[in-house]
Amino acid sequence: MKNKVDTIINTKWILLIKPKNKVIENSSIVINNSIILDIDDTDIIHRKYESKELYNLNTHCIMPGLINNHTHLSMSLFKGIADDLNLDAWLKNKIWPLETKHVDNEFVELGSKLAIIELIKSGSTCFNDMYFFPEVTAYASLELGIRASLGLITIDFPSNYAQNSEEYLEKGLNTRDKLKNETLVSFTMAPHAPYTVGNETLKKIFTLSNELDLPIHMHIHETENEIIESIENYNQRPIERLLDLGLINPNFIGIHAVHLNSDDISILSKNKANLVSCPISNFKLGSGIPNAALQNSEKISLSFGTDGSASNNKLDILSEARVGSLLAKGISKDATKFNSNDALECLTINAAKSLGMENKIGTIEKNKVADIIAIDFNKIISQPIFNPVSHIVHAIDRENITHSWVNGKCIMKDRNVLTIDENLINQKVQRFVKKF
Amino acid sequence: MKNKVDTIINTKWILLIKPKNKVIENSSIVINNSIILDIDDTDIIHRKYESKELYNLNTHCIMPGLINNHTHLSMSLFKGIADDLNLDAWLKNKIWPLETKHVDNEFVELGSKLAIIELIKSGSTCFNDMYFFPEVTAYASLELGIRASLGLITIDFPSNYAQNSEEYLEKGLNTRDKLKNETLVSFTMAPHAPYTVGNETLKKIFTLSNELDLPIHMHIHETENEIIESIENYNQRPIERLLDLGLINPNFIGIHAVHLNSDDISILSKNKANLVSCPISNFKLGSGIPNAALQNSEKISLSFGTDGSASNNKLDILSEARVGSLLAKGISKDATKFNSNDALECLTINAAKSLGMENKIGTIEKNKVADIIAIDFNKIISQPIFNPVSHIVHAIDRENITHSWVNGKCIMKDRNVLTIDENLINQKVQRFVKKF
Repeated sequence: MKNKVDTIINTKWILLIKPKNKVIENSSIVINNSIILDIDDTDIIHRKYESKELYNLNTHCIMPGLINNHTHLSMSLFKGIADDLNLDAWLKNKIWPLETKHVDNEFVELGSKLAIIELIKSGSTCFNDMYFFPEVTAYASLELGIRASLGLITIDFPSNYAQNSEEYLEKGLNTRDKLKNETLVSFTMAPHAPYTVGNETLKKIFTLSNELDLPIHMHIHETENEIIESIENYNQRPIERLLDLGLINPNFIGIHAVHLNSDDISILSKNKANLVSCPISNFKLGSGIPNAALQNSEKISLSFGTDGSASNNKLDILSEARVGSLLAKGISKDATKFNSNDALECLTINAAKSLGMENKIGTIEKNKVADIIAIDFNKIISQPIFNPVSHIVHAIDRENITHSWVNGKCIMKDRNVLTIDENLINQKVQRFVKKF
Repeated sequence: MKNKVDTIINTKWILLIKPKNKVIENSSIVINNSIILDIDDTDIIHRKYESKELYNLNTHCIMPGLINNHTHLSMSLFKGIADDLNLDAWLKNKIWPLETKHVDNEFVELGSKLAIIELIKSGSTCFNDMYFFPEVTAYASLELGIRASLGLITIDFPSNYAQNSEEYLEKGLNTRDKLKNETLVSFTMAPHAPYTVGNETLKKIFTLSNELDLPIHMHIHETENEIIESIENYNQRPIERLLDLGLINPNFIGIHAVHLNSDDISILSKNKANLVSCPISNFKLGSGIPNAALQNSEKISLSFGTDGSASNNKLDILSEARVGSLLAKGISKDATKFNSNDALECLTINAAKSLGMENKIGTIEKNKVADIIAIDFNKIISQPIFNPVSHIVHAIDRENITHSWVNGKCIMKDRNVLTIDENLINQKVQRFVKKF
């Protein structure tokens, strides 16, 4: 008698990620109770199991869901509102005034939902966010069924969300207490940046990170100016200062890291910190080229983030990995660098590791949670196919991604997000932004 | 009584390109006898004209068709066959042996058709190609209804197409004679590169270019090695040598130009030569970063090309402009550089000028030929919209491009190419590449 299971997916290729570069053909994945129960030849699977749900995706490649490891989801409502501005002017003249005027619960709910729809349609099954009102984004994630890592944001100046660092931390910890048993939701301590958070607050955050075993999610070394100011104010580069405060450790997720000297690299590498590169945002805001992070990806575990929609202007994590991979080749003048496997490890297992979830997601393996996407290669503009791995990075578009499962549940089918009314959100967004 | 015309397109936005940055809203375009007859408010147009064909594209932006200004179309059959290799190894160990084994009329016909379908679906209404058997690509273009600039390729070594430079030139000129009265087809003299074509052949090509008033389409300064070898062999940098031979003039279209020193820039600028940047291919082949070309776009007329699918691996010219624009900002650390208008001028009027077609295509203007695309902004992942111009460069994907008209004729509607059976080509390609 056959085993009864929730779901079987038959497919042409499965990219496992681990072992590196391993693609198996004409195989099936069995999902039961949100777990990958089995992976084998399609014939064998169908002799052993029968399923409630069956997907025949015979021109597709299945791979682990992509992780967008740095976002400010709600800012999707500001997509394209502030182009061609350097980071400083962009923040001070555009984004901060807009945030003061508009950011509240309603803004964050709608912006998060819009962004999560885009994430799902871009192949992301998990994101790592940093923004005000993280509780609202958490509930939007639960509604849409995506896996969420939410930054408990802390800044030493007031916003519409909190008045001072104590209030930021208190609200953040309350949010975590409320939601800590949700399977799909996890948290990071998220001090905004070395130039917006002082030592006293950082010490508290370090203690909390240890007590609660939470990663620390923080912008670092995004612009040259940030480093110059830190030397003026602290007589240290930001990474040196964070090291002294204890923050640079395997739980640290440093975002951007555009400007790194050899000491910075050695500190990050020795202390096994994680970096997230957001090359498109760095370019677009004139911050520079995150070359050091890309060239040292063998020494420092690297993943990618899109940053927010106000500085990208897409949440297309595949594009980010493509640009990162191309850049690593172009700047080193060595095309053998940062191949497509490296790029896809960044989007899956490396990001999972930085979030402390490497035993749960990031590869297609038995007993891991089924966070999975399917990519259709049958479009004419995707033909011919010689190597599915390089095809994912260099030849397809996010539009080729047709299906998505998170925690074993199908949340996108044939590019329709199943967990929300997309048209309703589209209409709401078009109405909402009229006031900006 | 109303004027009878061929086509009216009603739309939300029209991006004219000239005047720079000008977007008009709620307007219509009238096409008659392949020409843009009128552009005005939708109300006014419908009082004046009645049309055989009417398109209501009320969530769309209309703009001039994009020009992919450097391609090797047939190589689409080699998409992804040779990844993570430096240019030299890529050519010598992979591409040249494959070409020797497989390139013939049949290969070029199928490869060109596959690539033209991708071009059309990427918003290109015109391309500038360089490959063997240009006559075959010309007929494929005529069948699919796209505007084609075909390079009469010349190399000083044998291929499956011709044995020596005389035969290349003879075959090229015969092709031109046969097709010179076709509206959609034009030609360039296409000496492959300074390192593959000697001075005698280049002198002949210079004479022919003058006699026939044809642009010269040539790879230049793609790698550092090419420059080093030229100094060894000719005691001159390639651009200096081409200048001495008379080739550097307003009819010159130099491709890649990754490595330019200030003398090169001054020569190109003073002689009003045109450059085509292919940043993604340059990155992917480890050739370097085309920074000088991007940073000097105010001095030297710049456009973009994707290069062939074997080194990109897409023919997505919008991505190319996006990457070029981002790179110009990132490397200069100045986000105000190379804004979205600049990027879209590169893809339209600048490319048209390099091909000698600036009076015919490249802007939406009365009396120009109707080479036009429509971009749908209504997808939820494209919301919200504050600035349609930056949206085209930074927020949409090629999948948003829904309609295309070339010479007034609709060749893509709702993303279906109307001039060929896409599925048939898809099946043929999948069968054909099995032998590689």
